[in-house]
Amino acid sequence: MRILIAMVGWPLRAILAVLMLGAMSNDSRGADSTTNFVLVLHGGAGVWRNELTPEREKESRAAMRAALVAGHAILRTNGKSLDAVEAAIRILEDSPVFNAGKGSVLTAEGTVEMDASIMEGATKKAGAVASVKRIKNPITAARLVMEKSPHVMMVGEGAEKFVKEQDVKLVPPSYFITPFRKEEWERAKQKKSAKRSAEAEARDAIGTVGAVALDTRGHLAAGTSTGGMLNKKFGRVGDSPIIGAGTYANNGTCAVSCTGHGEYFIRSAVAHDVSALMEYKGLSVRAAGEQALAKVDQLGGKGGFIAMDARGNIAMPFNTDGMFRGVIRANGEITITVFRE
Amino acid sequence: MRILIAMVGWPLRAILAVLMLGAMSNDSRGADSTTNFVLVLHGGAGVWRNELTPEREKESRAAMRAALVAGHAILRTNGKSLDAVEAAIRILEDSPVFNAGKGSVLTAEGTVEMDASIMEGATKKAGAVASVKRIKNPITAARLVMEKSPHVMMVGEGAEKFVKEQDVKLVPPSYFITPFRKEEWERAKQKKSAKRSAEAEARDAIGTVGAVALDTRGHLAAGTSTGGMLNKKFGRVGDSPIIGAGTYANNGTCAVSCTGHGEYFIRSAVAHDVSALMEYKGLSVRAAGEQALAKVDQLGGKGGFIAMDARGNIAMPFNTDGMFRGVIRANGEITITVFRE
Repeated sequence: MRILIAMVGWPLRAILAVLMLGAMSNDSRGADSTTNFVLVLHGGAGVWRNELTPEREKESRAAMRAALVAGHAILRTNGKSLDAVEAAIRILEDSPVFNAGKGSVLTAEGTVEMDASIMEGATKKAGAVASVKRIKNPITAARLVMEKSPHVMMVGEGAEKFVKEQDVKLVPPSYFITPFRKEEWERAKQKKSAKRSAEAEARDAIGTVGAVALDTRGHLAAGTSTGGMLNKKFGRVGDSPIIGAGTYANNGTCAVSCTGHGEYFIRSAVAHDVSALMEYKGLSVRAAGEQALAKVDQLGGKGGFIAMDARGNIAMPFNTDGMFRGVIRANGEITITVFRE
Repeated sequence: MRILIAMVGWPLRAILAVLMLGAMSNDSRGADSTTNFVLVLHGGAGVWRNELTPEREKESRAAMRAALVAGHAILRTNGKSLDAVEAAIRILEDSPVFNAGKGSVLTAEGTVEMDASIMEGATKKAGAVASVKRIKNPITAARLVMEKSPHVMMVGEGAEKFVKEQDVKLVPPSYFITPFRKEEWERAKQKKSAKRSAEAEARDAIGTVGAVALDTRGHLAAGTSTGGMLNKKFGRVGDSPIIGAGTYANNGTCAVSCTGHGEYFIRSAVAHDVSALMEYKGLSVRAAGEQALAKVDQLGGKGGFIAMDARGNIAMPFNTDGMFRGVIRANGEITITVFRE
């Protein structure tokens, strides 16, 4: 901040400083300069250079930026990492461009079935919902399972019934279906008989969203939300709602949220694997991330994940062409990237 | 075997030797004396001394013995560990005394909802079904998901629909409900308002079944099947169908099947944790088992698991009063234990 102010001329500097006072006051009150809160998001691996239109990239970046800013506002005022994760993912779920909440991909039956999970690093409490069709924000449902039920995972109508008991209004299944997904599904139906590559399979899971956050108390949290895989069989559940596979958080190691071809991520228990590599081998989050992804790759799986340790160090590995990913740090600096740099 | 024969007098020795020839011929043909195949089963942790009637213990032991013998027959003829795991668990599912398949505990709604998973250590392929109500043998459904679908996990009606497409006949929900479970459920309904202890919660998950096997090729497999938790909410899924939590298998480390209060086992990713402790810390299966269970215990969770490495070393830790567990080794020797020795 000081550097930025120093770089501009005096009159402008004064105006800037005044304008920033409002925004910064919470920072200076609640947290000192060593405070290291961070929010990292992903919007899915399986992005292919030749398929991402400039328009869709722009929409995705805008939604991701809004989600980063919303999460940052919570962390900046000493909010919980769990709240930041939930708030950011809700924005991505509400955006029609990601494969989560509104805009989820369609199943073989042409319906939407969503999965989500959330985990708190301090308590290792977790919640998840799978195969839900009428919950506007599955990430909030996952959090309700964690905080308001004795359970960790609830599926299908049972999950919907529970969420309704918690005064969450259900929406009709048609709310989730966008014209883009309908067309995509119709194209996929026609190509169905063709032999699919691992890349194509990962592409069909494009747009899963996830978040990991570190708050000013040093607590980690992670969450993931998805519409799953295009053309998946009715009832298929991927890694996103599986604690240990798609999502994991432990203050002692890291917070992780995955995206990609879920079957491989389940078989490798990827999110827990990153944590275990740090805990048992003493690896950095970056080295652990590389090793965990290499194992998925060995099985033939494609995808990626975001991971962060309790000091705010980040890993964002992927073995696809690209992965939508965004970072916002305590100083408000935002980076959004899609492909390899 | 030779020792056993040497210990008896000559005439009896001759008769014994002849009788054993039939049973042993497959051994001597297919496997030499260094062959080390093993099958380990559990019939659930959460067994309380003052609640297990002699009659129920006898029935449980008989079913477990039958399952051990069936699995042994497969391993002895160089069958796959995956086949032994499935065959043994099918017998436990068909028995009304365990909380899996027929005889599953009832949900809060008085219905049966079952979960199962299976994993192959050589390929790390896995399959699981959750929240199914009409599949006679959920473990076989899990295997079908693994081998006949591109997916790892399928839930609810979608799973039932898929299994039906594989020519598996569905049974009516009433098939699973036994008078014992009905009475137990009615008692539980009355006590519902009382504050529950961690022990009581684990007891309500009593009778989950699981198997780990090592075959003559040195391949590991693991499987778990359950009716879940007495009085659970409609749609609740525990650790049993979660690869990495209730079940894991990796030829390089171990095969694991868990039982107990599933929520804690999910949050600790117990089955994968045992594997990770062996792989990353170089621990024995026994030491890894102890450390993994200690972590569940720290969170307040009760239960146990069976684990075996690729040399046939076994760990069967639990932090409840008892855990039904049985072992059959290559020589046909059977040990069935319930409480601490």
